[in-house]
Amino acid sequence: MKRHFDVELRELKKRILEMDSLVEVAIDYSIKALTDRDEKLILEVTKKEEGINKAHIEIDEICLRLLALRQPMAADLRFIAAALKINSELERMGDLAVNITDATVELLKEPPLKPLMDIPKMSSLSRQMTKDALDAFINRDVELAKNVISRDDEVDNLKDQLFRELLTYMMSDPKAIKRALELILVSRHLERIGDHATNIAEDVVFMVLGEDIRHPN
Amino acid sequence: MKRHFDVELRELKKRILEMDSLVEVAIDYSIKALTDRDEKLILEVTKKEEGINKAHIEIDEICLRLLALRQPMAADLRFIAAALKINSELERMGDLAVNITDATVELLKEPPLKPLMDIPKMSSLSRQMTKDALDAFINRDVELAKNVISRDDEVDNLKDQLFRELLTYMMSDPKAIKRALELILVSRHLERIGDHATNIAEDVVFMVLGEDIRHPN
Repeated sequence: MKRHFDVELRELKKRILEMDSLVEVAIDYSIKALTDRDEKLILEVTKKEEGINKAHIEIDEICLRLLALRQPMAADLRFIAAALKINSELERMGDLAVNITDATVELLKEPPLKPLMDIPKMSSLSRQMTKDALDAFINRDVELAKNVISRDDEVDNLKDQLFRELLTYMMSDPKAIKRALELILVSRHLERIGDHATNIAEDVVFMVLGEDIRHPN
Repeated sequence: MKRHFDVELRELKKRILEMDSLVEVAIDYSIKALTDRDEKLILEVTKKEEGINKAHIEIDEICLRLLALRQPMAADLRFIAAALKINSELERMGDLAVNITDATVELLKEPPLKPLMDIPKMSSLSRQMTKDALDAFINRDVELAKNVISRDDEVDNLKDQLFRELLTYMMSDPKAIKRALELILVSRHLERIGDHATNIAEDVVFMVLGEDIRHPN
């Protein structure tokens, strides 16, 4: 029975990695649709999000079934609890990719506003945080997880800087207001993607060390 | 043993309700600080959020302990899984109340912008959704949970309407841009509070019926 349980846990890891791939592609495409002004990619994000939602429900079911049938203890229990949480984080990241495309739809209705500024940089940072957080989960790598957590400030700083720059832009050109506003919203969505990657990394630290590093005082 | 388990489940419910009270007060105060221009209330929100974060960690621990020691099946397992998820939703709502106060701090630096418009209405709607979602959880009330879910569109519509109104405002008066922008962010935070209440209501339906109503196609 223990051996079969190991197979089930490996299968669960595999499913989460597959879901993560969908999420990473959805984030990439949502920003690429904006930078390349390519509407076709928006449809691709919608399709990926459907796959993400399907994976979300299935992974939840797998976790609950394992909890019920295998009644895991200690490390295995913490692993499945982490999987349940990471599953929710990934699903929300998919929603955020769709939110980015909502802003992109509005932005593509008008000529491009020159400064996309640090939006592609924010996107690649938060995407890399996601990838590393998932690698940390799979390899039980606490150092990598802590490294992800330390990078969250970088994304936040970029968001604040973008906000100030776009605000100046809006004040000097009222015709740019709508577009600058949509870009501010895009940067908030990217910031939240970074937050979710940080949440995953915190779940990994708890899973491995059994130590709760959330909400430090 | 079963009887003692029932006591533990009741205690878990009680802890979640206490956390919910903190969340509801934090949301209330965050909006009241804005409408009454009362900075003291911002500090109160910070204090409530500390309590929320503490409750978040403790409730997580209770759930994991019950899963490990009681190895619950079927309805009890779904109840504890729902508690774990609701715990995360409530914690995020606390974060959003703090995000609202971040915007309020900026808004209180300048004279009031006349139209707070539908922000107090959005706030009371999302707060009531939260209250009802938690009542639905405690009383296993699927009808009330579905009712909460149906109200999410109302909050979304108010957010969209506010966005259009504030955009017009910004275009006609560049000096209002910064403040209108902060109010747009406040309305987004309130919308997300409504989303979390909806997530809780969906968890309740799944818990009671064992039926997943998320991501309908």
